[in-house]
Amino acid sequence: MIASDLNTGHAGPALIVAPHPDDEVLGAGGTMARMADAGREVHVVVVTRGKPPKFTNEQVATTRREARNAHDLLGVTETHWMDFNAAELSEHAHSDLNGALGKLVRDIAPSLILAPHPGDIHMDHQLSFLSTLVASRPHQHDYPANILAYETLSETNWNAPYLTPAFVPNVFVDISDTIERKLQAFGKFESQVKQAPHERSVDSLRALATLRGATVHRSAAEGFVLVRSVI
Amino acid sequence: MIASDLNTGHAGPALIVAPHPDDEVLGAGGTMARMADAGREVHVVVVTRGKPPKFTNEQVATTRREARNAHDLLGVTETHWMDFNAAELSEHAHSDLNGALGKLVRDIAPSLILAPHPGDIHMDHQLSFLSTLVASRPHQHDYPANILAYETLSETNWNAPYLTPAFVPNVFVDISDTIERKLQAFGKFESQVKQAPHERSVDSLRALATLRGATVHRSAAEGFVLVRSVI
Amino acid sequence: MIASDLNTGHAGPALIVAPHPDDEVLGAGGTMARMADAGREVHVVVVTRGKPPKFTNEQVATTRREARNAHDLLGVTETHWMDFNAAELSEHAHSDLNGALGKLVRDIAPSLILAPHPGDIHMDHQLSFLSTLVASRPHQHDYPANILAYETLSETNWNAPYLTPAFVPNVFVDISDTIERKLQAFGKFESQVKQAPHERSVDSLRALATLRGATVHRSAAEGFVLVRSVI
Amino acid sequence: MIASDLNTGHAGPALIVAPHPDDEVLGAGGTMARMADAGREVHVVVVTRGKPPKFTNEQVATTRREARNAHDLLGVTETHWMDFNAAELSEHAHSDLNGALGKLVRDIAPSLILAPHPGDIHMDHQLSFLSTLVASRPHQHDYPANILAYETLSETNWNAPYLTPAFVPNVFVDISDTIERKLQAFGKFESQVKQAPHERSVDSLRALATLRGATVHRSAAEGFVLVRSVI
Amino acid sequence: MIASDLNTGHAGPALIVAPHPDDEVLGAGGTMARMADAGREVHVVVVTRGKPPKFTNEQVATTRREARNAHDLLGVTETHWMDFNAAELSEHAHSDLNGALGKLVRDIAPSLILAPHPGDIHMDHQLSFLSTLVASRPHQHDYPANILAYETLSETNWNAPYLTPAFVPNVFVDISDTIERKLQAFGKFESQVKQAPHERSVDSLRALATLRGATVHRSAAEGFVLVRSVI
Amino acid sequence: MIASDLNTGHAGPALIVAPHPDDEVLGAGGTMARMADAGREVHVVVVTRGKPPKFTNEQVATTRREARNAHDLLGVTETHWMDFNAAELSEHAHSDLNGALGKLVRDIAPSLILAPHPGDIHMDHQLSFLSTLVASRPHQHDYPANILAYETLSETNWNAPYLTPAFVPNVFVDISDTIERKLQAFGKFESQVKQAPHERSVDSLRALATLRGATVHRSAAEGFVLVRSVI
Repeated sequence: MIASDLNTGHAGPALIVAPHPDDEVLGAGGTMARMADAGREVHVVVVTRGKPPKFTNEQVATTRREARNAHDLLGVTETHWMDFNAAELSEHAHSDLNGALGKLVRDIAPSLILAPHPGDIHMDHQLSFLSTLVASRPHQHDYPANILAYETLSETNWNAPYLTPAFVPNVFVDISDTIERKLQAFGKFESQVKQAPHERSVDSLRALATLRGATVHRSAAEGFVLVRSVI
Repeated sequence: MIASDLNTGHAGPALIVAPHPDDEVLGAGGTMARMADAGREVHVVVVTRGKPPKFTNEQVATTRREARNAHDLLGVTETHWMDFNAAELSEHAHSDLNGALGKLVRDIAPSLILAPHPGDIHMDHQLSFLSTLVASRPHQHDYPANILAYETLSETNWNAPYLTPAFVPNVFVDISDTIERKLQAFGKFESQVKQAPHERSVDSLRALATLRGATVHRSAAEGFVLVRSVI
Repeated sequence: MIASDLNTGHAGPALIVAPHPDDEVLGAGGTMARMADAGREVHVVVVTRGKPPKFTNEQVATTRREARNAHDLLGVTETHWMDFNAAELSEHAHSDLNGALGKLVRDIAPSLILAPHPGDIHMDHQLSFLSTLVASRPHQHDYPANILAYETLSETNWNAPYLTPAFVPNVFVDISDTIERKLQAFGKFESQVKQAPHERSVDSLRALATLRGATVHRSAAEGFVLVRSVI
Repeated sequence: MIASDLNTGHAGPALIVAPHPDDEVLGAGGTMARMADAGREVHVVVVTRGKPPKFTNEQVATTRREARNAHDLLGVTETHWMDFNAAELSEHAHSDLNGALGKLVRDIAPSLILAPHPGDIHMDHQLSFLSTLVASRPHQHDYPANILAYETLSETNWNAPYLTPAFVPNVFVDISDTIERKLQAFGKFESQVKQAPHERSVDSLRALATLRGATVHRSAAEGFVLVRSVI
Repeated sequence: MIASDLNTGHAGPALIVAPHPDDEVLGAGGTMARMADAGREVHVVVVTRGKPPKFTNEQVATTRREARNAHDLLGVTETHWMDFNAAELSEHAHSDLNGALGKLVRDIAPSLILAPHPGDIHMDHQLSFLSTLVASRPHQHDYPANILAYETLSETNWNAPYLTPAFVPNVFVDISDTIERKLQAFGKFESQVKQAPHERSVDSLRALATLRGATVHRSAAEGFVLVRSVI
Repeated sequence: MIASDLNTGHAGPALIVAPHPDDEVLGAGGTMARMADAGREVHVVVVTRGKPPKFTNEQVATTRREARNAHDLLGVTETHWMDFNAAELSEHAHSDLNGALGKLVRDIAPSLILAPHPGDIHMDHQLSFLSTLVASRPHQHDYPANILAYETLSETNWNAPYLTPAFVPNVFVDISDTIERKLQAFGKFESQVKQAPHERSVDSLRALATLRGATVHRSAAEGFVLVRSVI
């Protein structure tokens, strides 16, 4: 049902919420490319920024450059940088994150939001998810009509089975035509890519796409959990 | 995302699986009308038939006539009647139901299936859901790309909270334009409609539409749980 | 089983925990009125207070006056005001909220507590629920014997289906005799009431009462999730 | 809230559904005795009967005699014997069990039903639970207002954690005054009682009562899961 | 913790329950080979047999020959054939399957059982799981101390997310040394293997092993859900 | 499967994470003793420290002395004291706790971690669990291969049934030989032990061991929920 919208430019902007740079590519890079190919506006917001002394300014600059390279390859319209402290999102006032994301949602007016999964092991992901939902509340006629949660290798599978929210995909986007570009985009994050058998490696990412695809008889797919769709 | 497809005739046929006549109207009557209005083929399959002595042939004929009247009002393309025994679906071989639904799915080739919810209290509903999924397995390139479960007043809310599968809607279809027709269609089932405060009454059905609508800031809506969407 | 207690004055005080004024009326206004009618002590604690510059002192005063008007109409014995910052409960020390609610529970010694639902989208609700449970721990002979979670339109239905705790009511209180007073009480919150089809509107609230009632063959009801009952 | 009703004779009859004799004593013997002491009518229905050659008629007679002795000790008003085949409930037509339990519920008109838990490992328990719910549907003004599921040692703990419905008690009945009688009643089932450390032993049953009691600061308790309470 | 046992011959027999031939290889082929390599007895029981006219005797003979070839390659000690009708397990008396599996468990006395997952879409899998648990009840000192559920491509991922039991692995067996043999063994089922992108293809099976491995930083792994482990 | 490892000294160190002193004994005292008896290194980390004015320095010293006495009795190799503020763990930066536990895990390199349950009512427990998982991420070849959650009387049973994560044990450790020592060790916490029927009493702890044991036909056991096991 969603296919036709993905493939047209009339569907309204999409917004992908990334707690840290590369989360969005791991979880939704193929879908982003497919939407961009179809002429749809694709926005990414990176919620956090590495803070000294944990991260040097140079490291931050490197990662952001890598992200832009990846985003260019995928056809991202615009990348929005927020400066909440990475790995310390829980130290910020919850209402500040709500406010910042709320403003962005009002400005972009996306019809589709892809957010990290609330069951991810990283608290930055959990809080980004919750604030995304707050920012998208259907308290007026217009709001993001479609919200999905994506899976992030090295975050989603590392939490506690049956004790934290499970990721069991019910939306599958065929990325047969964009899987290679997704892997290339991920490769742009030279400072982040790990060697197999690390989950955050190219091999793992390809295996995930193959498996998610096979579940629905496609060569490659990305899986999502639907949060809300209003038709 | 699904809206554009609902509103065009190019989206492929829709199939609504009703364990008994009127389940489909309670759960999805407004959505059916909206799809029909948009020119989409809408099929209904009624899985069971009342069996003597519990139900006389006359009663069965009455209910089927009522169903056809309701379906005409909603713009249903075709109603398919199966003759499994009502309230005794568990006495039939599971593979027979799988086979019958499988054949229908191959014949109609729907791109959307609306099925009863597996957490409904009626075992006929539970088994209809499972067989619908078997009949829609993605084991080849073509299969129903979208499967949703609908809610049925007097079935869905009467099972055991937290012990049987919960119905928590994540897809909302705006039926502001078809809610009145849905209520009229339900009214056609003169032999089935109950007086308020019975759940299977016109008042309850309207309250449900108002509530599901309000959740997403619409005048009236039908809620569904997404089972699978392939894009 | 609970009916007789609701209808007598011998049942001990009831305490309703409201993160913000009007949550308690939305979720339990009809039950509060019914208990008050039966001669039972009914206490409300409002956990937070709007903080400048987000909320002016005048706004706070207005809301509190509206709340008192609503509570008077419902027969509330006493309204207890705490001054934790609204929408910033997570910025307060968790132990402070535990302590404040603990003291109140010891002072009032309620036999029944109605708390917001932990699956509500608002973090103030989630934290109020948890602290209510901490304050009610059965670590000595006397403690609140009955704890239920209520549902709040515009909070409970707006979180993430299947990823956050679901509200599936297993306790239904017949409010056929008090539904009109509940709606009037809600109407007292002139600064909070929204127009339909907003969830926080009179129409939505009536539809919810009709639906919860119909589920148990009553004209109007409020639904709750039981947390603990000791008999 | 439920306490006052338990302790009076005005609360209406209670019905305990036992798939096999002794399930009801393991799960609710102390509560049954407490209700009988308070003057309340207490009915037990035993759903199945051992069938030759698996069980001889003599064995069946022995178990039924033991059950009556146990029930006498606990103050049961009447024991109702159904003759569905033990360990083969799934071979009977589902509608037959629905019908038989439905008739009993209409005849007794209980205000409280205690049913086995749907997560028990024994399919007879699972089906007894479902049919109890069907028989208690709130489709008219009068129906059993309170339904709880009890736990049965050697059935409830032996199913699959996190894959089948969990028993997590939210209703606790203080049986400090009747625990000894419960254990004696269980001891009447000489043909069923096992030696410790078997779960179906007197020692295990006492440990369970101690633990369920301690959770709510009582010397002994029985735990239940609430299915529905209408007040 | 389990590693040392897997790698010795002293750990007692393992029993893998396969509803149909090849389920056991898809879900646990690598683990089977690893245990056999370590000198451990490995038994497989195939629960069903294809029944004419759906399956010819020749087809049955072919599949069984393929299974034996696969099992030889993996080092299976013995394959046990039951003759329940394939795809019709629900038509057999539940107690018959319980009895047959119970006898096998007593005869082999396995310390480890690998069973299909109860959330699989195929009812034969669901019933095989339940009967395996019944056959392994801890009602005496000796019983299978370890029970795990495996995942079967084309069954486990095709059921209803969040409505049927989810497979979220919490036990990972490193099969880096046996993955190739597993894939070869699967290839022996010439009548069953499908071409990619079908889930039941060699490519999908390899992707699954890569992904399950990456989750725990290994080249290849099989994932399981623990049902019970007694130490 | 885990038995052989428990009973040898070759299995690598075990680390038990205790939010407050005595949690570790309540949840895993018998298992700790059994591992120590087998020659295995057993470490305990106590995450928090009572802070004035809530706790005097003398009280802290007393509790720590009691803990050491208990640990000596159980054969604990080393007790590691962290000084996060008790009952205020949520006021510390989440990354600080992650860091501190991460360093400890690297230093000790445990093959087994026993952590508090994320469904415990105490936020200190919830946060300790999450940080333990972060500290044990499988992002390199070596990491804690086995992680289990233990249950803590007066914390685990006091949260909200069906709304917060349930503790349903799937790993049972036979502590028939160490149950008495466990109870003695618990008795060393003179400042913490409560009188029955408090959950945190010797009687409750014995009842729990009896019940967990009976579930698997043993005289006494401790139950755990498996988070992850890599073999």
